[in-house]
Amino acid sequence: MTEHRYSETERAAVYRAIYERRDMRHFLPDPIASDVLRRLLEAAHHAPSVGFMQPWRFIRITSNALRGQIHALVEQERVRTAKALHEREDEFMKLKVEGILDCAVVLVAALSDRREKAVFGRRTMPDMDLASLACAIQNIWLAARAEGLGMGWVSLFEPEELKRLLAMPEGSQPAAILCLGHVERFYEKPMLEQEQWAERMPLDDLLFEDRWNSRADPV
Amino acid sequence: MTEHRYSETERAAVYRAIYERRDMRHFLPDPIASDVLRRLLEAAHHAPSVGFMQPWRFIRITSNALRGQIHALVEQERVRTAKALHEREDEFMKLKVEGILDCAVVLVAALSDRREKAVFGRRTMPDMDLASLACAIQNIWLAARAEGLGMGWVSLFEPEELKRLLAMPEGSQPAAILCLGHVERFYEKPMLEQEQWAERMPLDDLLFEDRWNSRADPV
Repeated sequence: MTEHRYSETERAAVYRAIYERRDMRHFLPDPIASDVLRRLLEAAHHAPSVGFMQPWRFIRITSNALRGQIHALVEQERVRTAKALHEREDEFMKLKVEGILDCAVVLVAALSDRREKAVFGRRTMPDMDLASLACAIQNIWLAARAEGLGMGWVSLFEPEELKRLLAMPEGSQPAAILCLGHVERFYEKPMLEQEQWAERMPLDDLLFEDRWNSRADPV
Repeated sequence: MTEHRYSETERAAVYRAIYERRDMRHFLPDPIASDVLRRLLEAAHHAPSVGFMQPWRFIRITSNALRGQIHALVEQERVRTAKALHEREDEFMKLKVEGILDCAVVLVAALSDRREKAVFGRRTMPDMDLASLACAIQNIWLAARAEGLGMGWVSLFEPEELKRLLAMPEGSQPAAILCLGHVERFYEKPMLEQEQWAERMPLDDLLFEDRWNSRADPV
């Protein structure tokens, strides 16, 4: 039953990317080679999608003025989020949560408009299109790590305001501001773990058997 | 600027998993070794999550009776989806859309209850938790491919009925029935492409520059 299994080296490489991928907020200014960026976008486009609907769209931000406006939008939401966190407001404001102005490439990842007809796998759960887009973004993330590039996923923004900035049509929906670039070093652990914002939960607390909260035998 | 880049072999392995991963619906009955299943779940748990909230929970289905009930739920939704597809009803009914009764392991992937307090990255877009769960599922998918295992993501079900079957609390939310197992062969292309349900779109149609529908220079 091992005929389809990758070699030990290949398997280790896949797990290496999974374990070393980080949500980066610190970047170097060096550019990304266009063939590398193309490979990342091709990797995104080979993600799974519900009913093969391929709902993903990517808007590359090339205008510095626009990049500044996007950054301002995020900064506004950062302050609002801090207030919504009440007793953790100060702690949150000390975190670096994005590298929009520093990274080499900013991409906005979005869902296409006119998705209503795609009911395959979405009749009862229409948000499966967002799940597909997230898989595409995870492909970019892992491929970028293998290419030696960092990526950050910023979701601190008012989607309607970002839509207006990018002339996005009704029915479309931005899900991520992706910051891509070279980095001096990758964080050893998730930055929010390093900064003691949150701890990794024990895996066994997240696994159940046949019904919710029934502790699974350790797999 | 290449110091963080993986070796050529490692990079090729990451892309290989990305390109060879398939949404599988045909399985062999052979069991999955428990250490392999554990590695897949650890890979899931090392996905990114918004505000490091780790919203994912996995319920392994060990009862055959329960597996049968889940299959019946999916079969019910398959028929309803077919009707909602109108002129494509017959074409849809001929597709194999799941392998729940045949695969080695069935996992239900879900969002935890009590997610309201996690506003970091979710104040304006609360569904970023589903995006995190999808990244975790994509990690399983890629790791499984490297291990030589197939996976299928089934989203044809009424979430409220699946919640009742698994005694899931209010506020939790199932997102996927994951079928995992050995396979005779992986599809050469996505099954829905092979069966001519849909075609892969040209990547350049999905890439814009600075504003929606502005055709990007080919990256």
